[in-house]
Amino acid sequence: MPLSAVKYYQREGLLPEGIRSAPNQVEYGEQHVKRVRLIRALLEAGGLSIAATRDVIRALDTEGAPLAETFSVASYAMNTPRIAESVPSADARERVMRLARAEGWAFTDDNPGIDSAARAIDGLNAIDFDAPDEYLLAYAKAAAVAAAADVRALTALSDPDQVAELMVVGTVLGDPLFAGLRRIAQADATHDIFPVAPDGDRS
Amino acid sequence: MPLSAVKYYQREGLLPEGIRSAPNQVEYGEQHVKRVRLIRALLEAGGLSIAATRDVIRALDTEGAPLAETFSVASYAMNTPRIAESVPSADARERVMRLARAEGWAFTDDNPGIDSAARAIDGLNAIDFDAPDEYLLAYAKAAAVAAAADVRALTALSDPDQVAELMVVGTVLGDPLFAGLRRIAQADATHDIFPVAPDGDRS
Repeated sequence: MPLSAVKYYQREGLLPEGIRSAPNQVEYGEQHVKRVRLIRALLEAGGLSIAATRDVIRALDTEGAPLAETFSVASYAMNTPRIAESVPSADARERVMRLARAEGWAFTDDNPGIDSAARAIDGLNAIDFDAPDEYLLAYAKAAAVAAAADVRALTALSDPDQVAELMVVGTVLGDPLFAGLRRIAQADATHDIFPVAPDGDRS
Repeated sequence: MPLSAVKYYQREGLLPEGIRSAPNQVEYGEQHVKRVRLIRALLEAGGLSIAATRDVIRALDTEGAPLAETFSVASYAMNTPRIAESVPSADARERVMRLARAEGWAFTDDNPGIDSAARAIDGLNAIDFDAPDEYLLAYAKAAAVAAAADVRALTALSDPDQVAELMVVGTVLGDPLFAGLRRIAQADATHDIFPVAPDGDRS
């Protein structure tokens, strides 16, 4: 781990200062090392911005916060847009909420997931693909399978700090985990129906 | 759609110039309008960088490319890192490939999904969470459900250009669609096991 990265994280308020043990020496404890690994995981694997990473870490560091609140704060932070994002259409938001209610999910209408899913539906509409119900339903089933696995992993832990950490980091990293596995599953499924044509024609 | 955005897309090589019909007037056809909607969907809902968006559009515009190749080019472009990304550990890569083989998926070991999933596993390890097999298996099942829905949507189309477009855009937008639905499903599942404590204590 280069010292320049540690200094950068400190300047950005992600990491506390080390303990100055001598004029030219700063000591970093085990907590520092763990924090650096967490920051890297959020920034690199999770693709969060520096600002969103700061929010997530603040949520984790708030003493005595109820877990549900930690999760809620972190969930919003993680949806901090990386670029200026448009407001999704009311129709798409309504479709997402109808789908979620049909799955029997309890949620509030300010859940940041609604906008994320609605924006995706709007984007598909932009190429004249009106996502059919069975398409959205399949994604809802996939999301339910993943969320159940998330919760099983959390309930297997006993240390409340570790639960909070996994809740936040697992929420961030579940996305690239799923995205990566979906690419592999797609390569398999797509190859069967669209084999590479030896003559270079679109087939 | 502000003209400044159109000019910006043109400067970035994402959009062709309009046809100059008079000294002070430029005409944009239906193709232009569709292209602008596609660019916005990739940039905003998909969260792609300008460079990745350019690669995806180039893949779509390559005449006579076999569909499998279009998909492959786009799949790589979509994994263009937004920030400097670390190389995932060999152990995590091996775990992902073992999981994919156990699912019976045919894939090549340069599939960009392997690195994405492996980086997520490394990130979870960084907070001392060694993802159990059943956790990864649940995500693989979720990915398979989504990939099957992707393919069903593609096979329902007949126009090859639309197939190529949905293949690429659907791959990008399936991620935020899943991520959004997972947030809602998590809120439901998490609320049951970690209710907000009225006294503000971590419960």
